[in-house]
Amino acid sequence: MNNTEIKKIVKQPRITLVGAGPGDADLITLKGIKALKTADVVLYDALVNEELLEYAPEGSVKVYVGKRSGDHSYSQDAVNKLMVDYALNYGHVVRLKGGDPFVFGRGYEELEYASLYSIPAEAVPGISSSIGVPGLQHIPVTHRGFSESFWVVTGTTSNGKVSADIYEAARSKATVVVLMGLNKLAEIVQIFKNEGKNKLPVAVIQSGSTVNEKIAVGVVDTIVELVEEKQVTSPALIVFGEVVSLHPHFKPIRDIYDIVAKG
Amino acid sequence: MNNTEIKKIVKQPRITLVGAGPGDADLITLKGIKALKTADVVLYDALVNEELLEYAPEGSVKVYVGKRSGDHSYSQDAVNKLMVDYALNYGHVVRLKGGDPFVFGRGYEELEYASLYSIPAEAVPGISSSIGVPGLQHIPVTHRGFSESFWVVTGTTSNGKVSADIYEAARSKATVVVLMGLNKLAEIVQIFKNEGKNKLPVAVIQSGSTVNEKIAVGVVDTIVELVEEKQVTSPALIVFGEVVSLHPHFKPIRDIYDIVAKG
Repeated sequence: MNNTEIKKIVKQPRITLVGAGPGDADLITLKGIKALKTADVVLYDALVNEELLEYAPEGSVKVYVGKRSGDHSYSQDAVNKLMVDYALNYGHVVRLKGGDPFVFGRGYEELEYASLYSIPAEAVPGISSSIGVPGLQHIPVTHRGFSESFWVVTGTTSNGKVSADIYEAARSKATVVVLMGLNKLAEIVQIFKNEGKNKLPVAVIQSGSTVNEKIAVGVVDTIVELVEEKQVTSPALIVFGEVVSLHPHFKPIRDIYDIVAKG
Repeated sequence: MNNTEIKKIVKQPRITLVGAGPGDADLITLKGIKALKTADVVLYDALVNEELLEYAPEGSVKVYVGKRSGDHSYSQDAVNKLMVDYALNYGHVVRLKGGDPFVFGRGYEELEYASLYSIPAEAVPGISSSIGVPGLQHIPVTHRGFSESFWVVTGTTSNGKVSADIYEAARSKATVVVLMGLNKLAEIVQIFKNEGKNKLPVAVIQSGSTVNEKIAVGVVDTIVELVEEKQVTSPALIVFGEVVSLHPHFKPIRDIYDIVAKG
């Protein structure tokens, strides 16, 4: 038995869920980097910046477990099993997830699965795109006189339908951030129209914090057309709220409305 | 004129708002650390971990601009002016703020003030306690079958009243996270009672991610008493929602209800 094998046997299994942030490799936390530096295995998702893998030790195992479109080979169940298998056989598994592990990240399911095997598990928060991506565009999710709260909703629920929470959110005065909702944009926008919010400012931001970042800024009535025109595609988030009017791209829109109002 | 003076004149004024995260010094982003490393001046708030100041260059100016209780000498206006004065005279000002700059952080007001003086300003997101602090306690703000959205509300509005958004949030199915609301806990809890949510799980977390962290876990009906019993104090956040039932402290509570239900 050589030294490598002895080391492998002695290692205690443990799991750390790490939020990688929205895309920019510099938007991971120091705590996340420290976890990566002690990883024996890194299991990483589709929206994670692969530059982050360089923090993991040279000999560590790196496994991509993201779902590519149309390829469902890595179900959540398969990821859970892999994670536990690797922990039992290799030691410290870092489960590197886009954004924050608990914002539509199914992080809690992974914690639960680890606990079935009595494997200690920790979670390291990440920058959620819901707050960070609008912020990088200087759209504050809260701002005095504009918004006293923000509500983050998923556009894609497990049954494929728009979440019932979006109907409630559209009635509220909160800034509403919809994640993973671009492919249902027309349907979501219609919910806001049904509440008479045709002139509510909206931004759609693709790949926030990365070189592929794109933004479309308009109002409920115009955003579907603008998104097509600017060819904004997934992954993208949608921000509904008066705070969007603070974005520099909104100024010409406001000017047009002022002219219309005066005319 | 010596070299130091020449250097001072040449420097371009600029401002970077940096989110310091919830308290643990390792919960700042790498991007935030990089900004601090090039700071000529750091203006930092009350809830910022002072260990972070060590990233700033040795000769840099560090100014505490937090409001201590009862001392309103640093109004937002005063902070804005200091920030611009320092940028014009020293170069790069890092405005180090607790959590994320745009989550009830008045970050946008600082960006606006900088733009009045045509000083370039950037924002670096931070881990918002609203997501990260529950997450560190393994309370996921979203979880399949429990919550399809989360709603973050301030407990303290500028007029001193409970935000109208809390009334709406109490009616919703979202996980509701109330920041800066502990001193209004009884009033906020009453709003949930008025909606018939007496048995809704609630957690109050003090100083999340720091050595002073404390948690009280109960239901709407019991949380005020529990918070007194456990002497949980500000700064603290409140989480209302079924997801709180996933916390290990909740298990004995559930067992009691099961017995009551069966009895």
